[in-house]
Amino acid sequence: MKIAVLPGDGIGPEIISEAVKVLNALGPKFELETAPVGGAAYDVAGHPLPPATLELAKNADAILFGAVGDWKYDTLARELRPEQAILGLRKHLELFANFRPAICYDELTAASSLKAEIVGGLDILIIRELNGDIYFGQPRGIRASELPLFKGAREGFDMMHYCEPEVERIGRVAFEAARKRSKKVCSVDKANVLETSQLWREVMIRVGKDYPDVELSHMYVDNAAMQLVKAPKAFDVVVTGNLFGDILSDEAAMLTGSIGMLPSASLDKNNKGLYEPSHGSAPDIAGKGIANPLATVLSAAMMLRYSLGLPEQADRIEAAVQKVLTQGLRTADIFTAGTTKVSTIQMGDAVVAAL
Amino acid sequence: MKIAVLPGDGIGPEIISEAVKVLNALGPKFELETAPVGGAAYDVAGHPLPPATLELAKNADAILFGAVGDWKYDTLARELRPEQAILGLRKHLELFANFRPAICYDELTAASSLKAEIVGGLDILIIRELNGDIYFGQPRGIRASELPLFKGAREGFDMMHYCEPEVERIGRVAFEAARKRSKKVCSVDKANVLETSQLWREVMIRVGKDYPDVELSHMYVDNAAMQLVKAPKAFDVVVTGNLFGDILSDEAAMLTGSIGMLPSASLDKNNKGLYEPSHGSAPDIAGKGIANPLATVLSAAMMLRYSLGLPEQADRIEAAVQKVLTQGLRTADIFTAGTTKVSTIQMGDAVVAAL
Ligand SMILES: CC(C)[C@H](C(=O)O)[C@@H](O)C(=O)O
Ligand SMILES: CC(C)[C@H](C(=O)O)[C@@H](O)C(=O)O
Repeated sequence: MKIAVLPGDGIGPEIISEAVKVLNALGPKFELETAPVGGAAYDVAGHPLPPATLELAKNADAILFGAVGDWKYDTLARELRPEQAILGLRKHLELFANFRPAICYDELTAASSLKAEIVGGLDILIIRELNGDIYFGQPRGIRASELPLFKGAREGFDMMHYCEPEVERIGRVAFEAARKRSKKVCSVDKANVLETSQLWREVMIRVGKDYPDVELSHMYVDNAAMQLVKAPKAFDVVVTGNLFGDILSDEAAMLTGSIGMLPSASLDKNNKGLYEPSHGSAPDIAGKGIANPLATVLSAAMMLRYSLGLPEQADRIEAAVQKVLTQGLRTADIFTAGTTKVSTIQMGDAVVAAL
Repeated sequence: MKIAVLPGDGIGPEIISEAVKVLNALGPKFELETAPVGGAAYDVAGHPLPPATLELAKNADAILFGAVGDWKYDTLARELRPEQAILGLRKHLELFANFRPAICYDELTAASSLKAEIVGGLDILIIRELNGDIYFGQPRGIRASELPLFKGAREGFDMMHYCEPEVERIGRVAFEAARKRSKKVCSVDKANVLETSQLWREVMIRVGKDYPDVELSHMYVDNAAMQLVKAPKAFDVVVTGNLFGDILSDEAAMLTGSIGMLPSASLDKNNKGLYEPSHGSAPDIAGKGIANPLATVLSAAMMLRYSLGLPEQADRIEAAVQKVLTQGLRTADIFTAGTTKVSTIQMGDAVVAAL
């Protein structure tokens, strides 16, 4: 089993090292091959997603991804910026289904800015479509406006769109996921304003008929942003488009207060996937050895489960992470009085010891 | 001074009655004229924004708006649904600047799902652009796709766009507002993905140069959705486009836990405006006499301040609302043990008594 390892920028290399350490301690032999991505790739190859990195990712069975981005690349043209690497990987590899769990660990409930009774035991799954919407829609650009009111003025424009098969395939992913959970899907759109959302909702309703055992509800995105704050535990599986999913999955992650714990998976139709922590590259703490590697370690566990057919190994990792939390070990981001503060490397070592 | 009063649907008529009662108790004589809007207008005139209602709104100095929407109109074609009334008023009257304060009253901090130390004393102002973006962009529709991958499939599409003068005018509104507050503006966009946002950010930076006393920062919308949950008090004035503003202003409102208290204003370039509570029409509690009228009463206060040049009268209303809270009076939505539960009408009467 071949895994492409793409550490990236900021804390990426540090957290990826720990996840690799955990994978190597498991038993099964993985063929790991590392390549630069993001700003690190721009530095050595002049592009955030160099052909060799893309090739490696294409040929691997799964991709373990750290994080990309650093202020020092802010002045680059957009097509050369680190984020283009992740957008490019999603698109080139047709990774259309993004799984973003928002889980609040009992030991970490206090880290949330929400009250314990609102967020304790939270376990929701946001499924975000990753290949369509306004992220890749054409036309887009900046032009001289033809609008009578603003004739000749500069106009920025981007096309939002979804085709029926795109909505259907992410819908099926959500309904299947709900079958393994509490059989509830909430589809989020803005059908009172957007045509794209009208189609989205219509297709979700049609596809939902094939899953009569799953309860389908619909919510406008503004209301979803509110209900996540008010009563997040009322949700289970949420399915939504690329743009709304970007916003809501981050909001949901932050509800837990411990985004340093949250993994993610981005899958293609054959369950090949890219696995990355939900948090970013945090350049402000890079190189200090204090980053939390657990989201990346848990991303590796998702990889074993979804792409590599090793659910028992995934369970082992997740149990080990639970154990280090129970032991009271905490990196700085989740540290509270009475627990033991550890470094990135110490946390990785503790997970290995707990396996 | 002529005020168009548009009660609308659901709890709209009940809460508007109380705001009108408060206005009438103030002293200055207002000419109030009422017209149906939303579903109520559809019922009597076949359209959610009949010409007579639009005419009245156009000719008034300000508009006091209740709320629109009810499940019973869900099966209507979209152009006939109640929400079209509010979209139509915003567009026809060029109400481009939406002021959405998110304030957490000391007496109501416990109503929030966030911890008191995170949300206590919160006072932020979201300024949302209301006339542009993907809300009104052309082209939009549902068509047979020309995309090679989905050729012939149904495709929903909507154009997001902003012209430079549109961004500039909402930017100036935000910088001016910040001058009266703590001189900080955070502009929210998705400039790492959207061309519209690239233009938005560039224009904000240029306009910001005219306000050297105001500190301008930029944040991606996904990060803003997170930071609002994590540390809302770090924000002061937030300025953003129509779609992101829809989501973030509702999220911010819900942080307070007492959306029944939050007013809003939608202004044109001459400070003529439409004033409405931030909450919706709540058809589930309509007619029960339990709705909270205070957001509407406070919307009337905003109207006096922004559109009618009566800031002292606005202050009087706001002080009266503060007083009823201090007296412990609460409608059901903000009731907690130890306070006195009152009806919609009792709450309105109490505000009048406190004036
Ligand atoms: C970096 C950025 C382009 C990306 C996105 O918007 O999808 C990120 O926010 C994410 O959610 O993975
Ligand atoms: C009703 C709807 C069209 C409207 C909007 O999206 O603007 C509402 O959510 C609002 O924020 O006033």
